[in-house]
Amino acid sequence: MQLALSTWQEVEDHLRDHEGIIVPIGSVEQHGPNGLIGTDHLCAEFVAQGVGDRIGCMVAPTLTYGMSQHHLGFTGSATLRPSTLMLVVRDVVQSLAVHGFRRFFFINGHGGNVATVTAGFDELYALKSLGLADPELRCRMVFWSGPRAKAVADDLYKGVNGSHATAAEVSLAQYYKQDAIKHAQMTPKVAPTAPQFFEAADYRKRFPDGRIGSDPSQSTPDHGKRLYEAAVEDMVEAYNAFLAY
Amino acid sequence: MQLALSTWQEVEDHLRDHEGIIVPIGSVEQHGPNGLIGTDHLCAEFVAQGVGDRIGCMVAPTLTYGMSQHHLGFTGSATLRPSTLMLVVRDVVQSLAVHGFRRFFFINGHGGNVATVTAGFDELYALKSLGLADPELRCRMVFWSGPRAKAVADDLYKGVNGSHATAAEVSLAQYYKQDAIKHAQMTPKVAPTAPQFFEAADYRKRFPDGRIGSDPSQSTPDHGKRLYEAAVEDMVEAYNAFLAY
Amino acid sequence: MQLALSTWQEVEDHLRDHEGIIVPIGSVEQHGPNGLIGTDHLCAEFVAQGVGDRIGCMVAPTLTYGMSQHHLGFTGSATLRPSTLMLVVRDVVQSLAVHGFRRFFFINGHGGNVATVTAGFDELYALKSLGLADPELRCRMVFWSGPRAKAVADDLYKGVNGSHATAAEVSLAQYYKQDAIKHAQMTPKVAPTAPQFFEAADYRKRFPDGRIGSDPSQSTPDHGKRLYEAAVEDMVEAYNAFLAY
Amino acid sequence: MQLALSTWQEVEDHLRDHEGIIVPIGSVEQHGPNGLIGTDHLCAEFVAQGVGDRIGCMVAPTLTYGMSQHHLGFTGSATLRPSTLMLVVRDVVQSLAVHGFRRFFFINGHGGNVATVTAGFDELYALKSLGLADPELRCRMVFWSGPRAKAVADDLYKGVNGSHATAAEVSLAQYYKQDAIKHAQMTPKVAPTAPQFFEAADYRKRFPDGRIGSDPSQSTPDHGKRLYEAAVEDMVEAYNAFLAY
Amino acid sequence: MQLALSTWQEVEDHLRDHEGIIVPIGSVEQHGPNGLIGTDHLCAEFVAQGVGDRIGCMVAPTLTYGMSQHHLGFTGSATLRPSTLMLVVRDVVQSLAVHGFRRFFFINGHGGNVATVTAGFDELYALKSLGLADPELRCRMVFWSGPRAKAVADDLYKGVNGSHATAAEVSLAQYYKQDAIKHAQMTPKVAPTAPQFFEAADYRKRFPDGRIGSDPSQSTPDHGKRLYEAAVEDMVEAYNAFLAY
Amino acid sequence: MQLALSTWQEVEDHLRDHEGIIVPIGSVEQHGPNGLIGTDHLCAEFVAQGVGDRIGCMVAPTLTYGMSQHHLGFTGSATLRPSTLMLVVRDVVQSLAVHGFRRFFFINGHGGNVATVTAGFDELYALKSLGLADPELRCRMVFWSGPRAKAVADDLYKGVNGSHATAAEVSLAQYYKQDAIKHAQMTPKVAPTAPQFFEAADYRKRFPDGRIGSDPSQSTPDHGKRLYEAAVEDMVEAYNAFLAY
Repeated sequence: MQLALSTWQEVEDHLRDHEGIIVPIGSVEQHGPNGLIGTDHLCAEFVAQGVGDRIGCMVAPTLTYGMSQHHLGFTGSATLRPSTLMLVVRDVVQSLAVHGFRRFFFINGHGGNVATVTAGFDELYALKSLGLADPELRCRMVFWSGPRAKAVADDLYKGVNGSHATAAEVSLAQYYKQDAIKHAQMTPKVAPTAPQFFEAADYRKRFPDGRIGSDPSQSTPDHGKRLYEAAVEDMVEAYNAFLAY
Repeated sequence: MQLALSTWQEVEDHLRDHEGIIVPIGSVEQHGPNGLIGTDHLCAEFVAQGVGDRIGCMVAPTLTYGMSQHHLGFTGSATLRPSTLMLVVRDVVQSLAVHGFRRFFFINGHGGNVATVTAGFDELYALKSLGLADPELRCRMVFWSGPRAKAVADDLYKGVNGSHATAAEVSLAQYYKQDAIKHAQMTPKVAPTAPQFFEAADYRKRFPDGRIGSDPSQSTPDHGKRLYEAAVEDMVEAYNAFLAY
Repeated sequence: MQLALSTWQEVEDHLRDHEGIIVPIGSVEQHGPNGLIGTDHLCAEFVAQGVGDRIGCMVAPTLTYGMSQHHLGFTGSATLRPSTLMLVVRDVVQSLAVHGFRRFFFINGHGGNVATVTAGFDELYALKSLGLADPELRCRMVFWSGPRAKAVADDLYKGVNGSHATAAEVSLAQYYKQDAIKHAQMTPKVAPTAPQFFEAADYRKRFPDGRIGSDPSQSTPDHGKRLYEAAVEDMVEAYNAFLAY
Repeated sequence: MQLALSTWQEVEDHLRDHEGIIVPIGSVEQHGPNGLIGTDHLCAEFVAQGVGDRIGCMVAPTLTYGMSQHHLGFTGSATLRPSTLMLVVRDVVQSLAVHGFRRFFFINGHGGNVATVTAGFDELYALKSLGLADPELRCRMVFWSGPRAKAVADDLYKGVNGSHATAAEVSLAQYYKQDAIKHAQMTPKVAPTAPQFFEAADYRKRFPDGRIGSDPSQSTPDHGKRLYEAAVEDMVEAYNAFLAY
Repeated sequence: MQLALSTWQEVEDHLRDHEGIIVPIGSVEQHGPNGLIGTDHLCAEFVAQGVGDRIGCMVAPTLTYGMSQHHLGFTGSATLRPSTLMLVVRDVVQSLAVHGFRRFFFINGHGGNVATVTAGFDELYALKSLGLADPELRCRMVFWSGPRAKAVADDLYKGVNGSHATAAEVSLAQYYKQDAIKHAQMTPKVAPTAPQFFEAADYRKRFPDGRIGSDPSQSTPDHGKRLYEAAVEDMVEAYNAFLAY
Repeated sequence: MQLALSTWQEVEDHLRDHEGIIVPIGSVEQHGPNGLIGTDHLCAEFVAQGVGDRIGCMVAPTLTYGMSQHHLGFTGSATLRPSTLMLVVRDVVQSLAVHGFRRFFFINGHGGNVATVTAGFDELYALKSLGLADPELRCRMVFWSGPRAKAVADDLYKGVNGSHATAAEVSLAQYYKQDAIKHAQMTPKVAPTAPQFFEAADYRKRFPDGRIGSDPSQSTPDHGKRLYEAAVEDMVEAYNAFLAY
């Protein structure tokens, strides 16, 4: 059940026996030569909506823009500053809480969001301790690929899934947006890795085409379908565990 | 051309001879008994992508959440605080400007965004005067329905299009999301109006089912198609005028 | 009754049977060759005090500085950033509300304030929805010239009142500050107009002496007297309508 | 020379051989049984304009609202939060600096502003060290009564001038606003003092009618005239010293 | 070499051939029945100063207060809000960068700081991309216990080191502050664990005496000495790797 | 009793019959040729802990970094922006107030903190008036040297104690950190003074080695001992007066 595609009266009915909501969150950033700039938010949204379809829970509109400062060296990447994204998280959570939502489960498509969104949750919790936010709010964020989806990716890509512009996320986005499948030469076939990187300029220098350790030339929509099904199952389990905690 | 569905190299190519970009912006708020909570961002996004398809310009991912404090009396509405939305506007514009975008054309689906987004543009311009932002940035925001689309709405709804949960926007969203067409009894058929309202509590009291002055029971996806075509033409014209200014 | 010229005990007495207060707001910005930099706040203050004198309502000290980034290309203009002005509005309203003021009627002298102040009101209302501000607060802002004053201006200036450094506001300020009437050559006599402008640099280029569409060489203090009387009547009506709403 | 009563071209001329500007700053807060709520900003403005008249320097519009949280226990007092007032100071200084003003001399009417405005100057200076503000800016704030005016007050009130709602400031405001002279019984004649106080609630308890240590029943407009003349001379000297530093 | 215990001329000399600096960061929060509230900042500071002594690098004063909202259920815990701590990080880094420091190596004693400080670094990097911060800045944060210290802890505590109020950190603090060794009964001997927790109230309920999974009744200053030596070696290696990157 | 060296249960016991806490606050800034960069926070911390030892009151961890923008012209100085330090004060006070601390006594080692910290207290008090902070909070800040310590300094240094890098504070820091006593040539022996200064660049020009009016070549740890004892007595008295107020 998508919040954006519901009427307010449908949401009111739904809230009678639910207090949880799923919030997909991603980014707008480069994903290598054949990955879409929207890959992260598309993957998070697609899996989140799959969970909503499967178990009838509510799915909020996607937080499309994330914390992507380290990708600004590649054309088309956009970022919220961390301080801004934290306020967005606060506002979305606090205004949905006005209606009675109490459990916010963020399905994330972008590792770069983790620190900022976690800090945003901590900010909300600090407000709770001071009596300035609803004392019952709870938030959690998980990446869309749980154990099942990771196993599929391991099986498919055997060590070259990588850590940015991964073969798995490119496949998943291809399955979601089949009209926007891109083809590109990639040299080297498997992108370089590095033990660490700092920010936009350093990132660009170390990873010249944007990928880290991945070979998304192997990606296909069929792979995406397998990943999607595994991921939805992963997220149903994780969401139920969150509600039951 | 959608930024989210492009690779960074495609955006880099595109920027060689373009400096404009369209940013759809909407809201997450009640739209009466048969209107979707996502109506505003869906309409803005749909028309913006239509412009992108028609003239090949770049369309950024939609700013889904807007300034909707006055709708918080209806379940499911979510809002950014004005101060937050202004920071979102600043960040999206400033980070896209890193790559060379200079002309930002916001297609808006929600009247409640106007003051805040305008204030956000003014904040950016004030930074420019102090040497703290790119001196070449220009931003403009227009509602998705220009003269052609307004004429269609007038023709279709003859005085009962209304000013919130309008018959036109409900139709346009029906045409965009044909799997999510809702039906509901609405009493009175034409919603009440008022010369002014203040905020969430006052809004709820004056407009009990969320609509203002509209009869969206007349909405159909076919109407939506006519409105869409008119609106895309309106926006192509407005965008070109903005670039040429 | 002016707050600044009252004692606290007089205000305490007044609050026993009033809950409204008028807040004049203007700007510090160029007003063309013969217009004063203070024109906007002087006009708002003058009319507001006239209303206070007429009906005995309370008038707060003027918010002198407004949002004038687009005038920074002309010497002497000063601006608050929109984010700052929003905080000023929040603080003035919230601290006067501590004493029991509940209805805040802003009489505005500057179109450039509209977006920012409206966003400031929305910010306050958003805080109300979260239980972080007085639930009874209501704010409204109107320009000092209502229908009567506009009719006078139309009669006096027949199409060349303009939209910045208007003949009407220059006249009104001349009537208020008769020791500061300025004379200047203006070429062309009627200033240029433009369908839109962006910010300080663009404004300066399009409107070289600061005026938009106006011929304030026609302004006189006698005109100002007619405008003042009409405007006070307009504002008395608007304020009473606000309180009665 | 008052900025508000000048045209932009007059300011441009003035700036050719001046880089200083005077900014009066006060408060909106109770001043005891016969003191006006506007006393502090009226005194600062009156003396500042006197300096402007005497030596032809530029005087900016008054910063009317100050930091008055400790007076919120008395009806009619209004305050900016310190963080807000600091932003106001930043914005006024930075936008006037766009035109070439470099020396900002604040004439202050309210002791409660000192910490906040000083912190505001420090914030600006910190920005300078980071290359984020004009490196030539200098700001100073002084109270309107220098040695001459203090000597007059000592002579007139012999130990009962006090430290809030002082006899001197009440006299000065009476001389400035002779139509708003108030009369009230005050018991005790000389208000209590205390070695310290904390905030609004504590202030109200210790100083029940708002005065601290003063006997403003002695105030007269004639006293105000003597104080005014001494204060203007004090401030001319202080301003010139600031410019020459 | 400790910044706090140096003169400015010594720092100036040091900067001729160094561009790195170590910043210890910890927290002020409960550490179970026998752990000190300062445990985290004491451990970070102690190890950082050990690195400074060993290799002569500069060590900044400790950031004592961290992000500890989840410990507010236990008396004496204090926290900065995440948004505040991010500004502290920004200011310390930016002002030390004025002098030429370019590489900031944070030695951390508190897992709860990781998200916030990482978000703070990202905020700085985002400013860099916009030209609003020094383009050469690099920041990294690591926990004080690298592989050597972890091996010591594993050897000493064999599975009951735990994850808060760990036996290792209690020992290290005992070795640093031998006059403040505390003794307390702990029941159960090994504290409970949980797969996750949310905030202060939830934390208190799940971990009634503040410990998570640890048995710090085994802690001794002798253990602390072994841990200290291993940790200093770990951090020397990590710091050198950071500089060489 | 030091908060950092206590367990949470000890603090809980202590709070049964105390509601006060001492917070030392200093700076990280140059203190002339033989003064330590940490002088201010070391002095405040040393005296505060002396008070804690003498009367058994609670002493919070030192706020090490202060407002030192005017020292950024000397290598090694670091500053928080005033707006940041105000948030730090707010957060430390508000989170300790969660546990029942109500009286916050800041012992200060740096004159440059006064305006900012006072503004920070005012910000908290303004929140109290709006119902957004604990109504019972009270804060006070005093410099570590009261009348007794000033008399000792006058006796020891007879007019050349100075106002920055004072002989007294250098002595006190030498007594606290006897392993970090520095020796340096100082020319002139007694540093220059000036009636005022503005910020970093101006400060550096007027006071080339960082000292103002002082001759810290006379400083000795023995002096420091005398000053320490006098200062602790001063602060015990001031703290008790604060609690009794």
